[in-house]
Amino acid sequence: MLGVVLHAPGDVRVEQREDPRVLAPTDAVIRLAATCVCGSDLWSYRGVNDVTSPTPMGHEYAGVVEEVGDEVRDVKPGQFVVGSFFASDNTCEICRSGFQTSCVNRVPVGAGGAQAQYLRVPLADGTLVATPEMPSDDLVPSLLAASDVLGTGWFAAVAAEVRPGATVAVVGDGAVGLLGVLAARELGAERIIAMSRHESRQKLATEFGATDIVTGRGDEGVAAVKELTGGLGAHSVIEAVGTQESMMQAIRSTRAGGAVGYVGVAHDVALPGEELFYSHVKLLGGPAPVRRFLPDLIDRVWSGAIDPGRVFDLTLPLDRAAEGYRAMDERRAIKALLTV
Amino acid sequence: MLGVVLHAPGDVRVEQREDPRVLAPTDAVIRLAATCVCGSDLWSYRGVNDVTSPTPMGHEYAGVVEEVGDEVRDVKPGQFVVGSFFASDNTCEICRSGFQTSCVNRVPVGAGGAQAQYLRVPLADGTLVATPEMPSDDLVPSLLAASDVLGTGWFAAVAAEVRPGATVAVVGDGAVGLLGVLAARELGAERIIAMSRHESRQKLATEFGATDIVTGRGDEGVAAVKELTGGLGAHSVIEAVGTQESMMQAIRSTRAGGAVGYVGVAHDVALPGEELFYSHVKLLGGPAPVRRFLPDLIDRVWSGAIDPGRVFDLTLPLDRAAEGYRAMDERRAIKALLTV
Repeated sequence: MLGVVLHAPGDVRVEQREDPRVLAPTDAVIRLAATCVCGSDLWSYRGVNDVTSPTPMGHEYAGVVEEVGDEVRDVKPGQFVVGSFFASDNTCEICRSGFQTSCVNRVPVGAGGAQAQYLRVPLADGTLVATPEMPSDDLVPSLLAASDVLGTGWFAAVAAEVRPGATVAVVGDGAVGLLGVLAARELGAERIIAMSRHESRQKLATEFGATDIVTGRGDEGVAAVKELTGGLGAHSVIEAVGTQESMMQAIRSTRAGGAVGYVGVAHDVALPGEELFYSHVKLLGGPAPVRRFLPDLIDRVWSGAIDPGRVFDLTLPLDRAAEGYRAMDERRAIKALLTV
Repeated sequence: MLGVVLHAPGDVRVEQREDPRVLAPTDAVIRLAATCVCGSDLWSYRGVNDVTSPTPMGHEYAGVVEEVGDEVRDVKPGQFVVGSFFASDNTCEICRSGFQTSCVNRVPVGAGGAQAQYLRVPLADGTLVATPEMPSDDLVPSLLAASDVLGTGWFAAVAAEVRPGATVAVVGDGAVGLLGVLAARELGAERIIAMSRHESRQKLATEFGATDIVTGRGDEGVAAVKELTGGLGAHSVIEAVGTQESMMQAIRSTRAGGAVGYVGVAHDVALPGEELFYSHVKLLGGPAPVRRFLPDLIDRVWSGAIDPGRVFDLTLPLDRAAEGYRAMDERRAIKALLTV
């Protein structure tokens, strides 16, 4: 099959890889309908994360089940399914508490490389959620978005304790930040402040529910959020970047007693204990337990209530994946969908 | 009046100070029944915090209202009252959300030095809570405990989201940690792991509700908590020390999806973003909004349901305050009560 492999920073190749097959009795193999490039893939593409050997890329996926292992009970060949970037058993104590990305038996699905024609998904019954029937083509981007970027924005909003009537600020205008805006709207936020200096992203943020746009960053951005909130800061802040500056911007934009939901993969971040102590800001983040939200998110997509697939502003066939990486790296595209 | 003044690290003197009086129409002046030495007073006593000029000490207080300003409506002379270390208006948005220690009009009561015969309390109506009637002497220590050390342990347990049936670990065996144990019990925890290597503190922890004692610190302590919790860690962890080691011990003792409530005043703490991200541990801490809990805590003390005053294992008259500091510094006493 064809699959995307990163050979070195900036060196994305689409090449023949071995077809995945069922290895464990709890595995499924799916034929992808679509996959995509994640902001977190850029950490390796840019050389921030080491690339020591050719690495199959991708961890977002939706498609049709081809084959299942002997012990798979709920997932059946022919079903259209969506899963998350960590396979989880969905039965352990941690899964049952809603943190499937910390499942005691978790397996990174991304190790298999989801930017490919086929993908092996471990722990299929715990990981995959089937759609009610085969989706029409126009629903596929939104279902794919549920696999990670929507689920991650949603978790950030839940972790930031977005409640009806709340004022929410969103740090980061990538796909996750934009879908954090959408999640905040769906969860009943009254005011949503999107922090962005890119016109096309501001526009999509507004369409997703942002009521205010702040273009300043760092201290300037914090001051703007404070000014919009009577000097107090937002009740809930979504952090979707992962740098020291963005984390501090998020914490400082939050009022005492408020919460930050942070989902940007942290890189070289050290949180000053004393400032955090006196801030009275609650923190929760990490790899989003997308599986917790998948049934609900699929329902919302299926009913047409939300259209998260709009974050894909570039669509390419799988064999032109390198163009997608380049466009995202140069911030010409918010997120690239790869048709398979 | 007599009051405690710290002249330099280790140099505690009880000397004549000017009698406090009503300065603002929202002030009250109280005659203290008792006050005490706080673990956080030791940061200055030990020279970890700078002492640049003679500093009146103390921020924990309970006593009888002597005089109130013209605008004080709810608090009346002759009432026995308990307050917290930050005066708060208890009406602003932040107070109403339960974070009175971040009140937009807050004033540190400690600046007046509560280790004294009299104390001026700003924002009296928002800050002070009266007891149903004049307490008997034996209730005074527990009412005084509510002023800070019980309220702080209670906040830590609430911030750590202690729920009925939960497994809780407590890092720190000072008065706050011990009362965190008591709070966890009152909030319905099923299992409470106290981390302590001092026999007298272990004993009090057990009497307050601890079901397990762990003597190891750092990695060893974490491993012991993991072993007691099926490898997962505790649901809720109370941090009551404030050092880098104790914060990391608390975070690493918590299961994914669990929460740390941290109330040890942070000193030279930097939390590694990446580890925190992958931990899935929720963090909330800071100066405890004791005022939120005071009415409930006073009720529980008044009814005899709890006896937090037992953390005072040394009682001295105010003029022997220096002995109390010394005993706490040398860990010969958990907490010193000063009678006035």
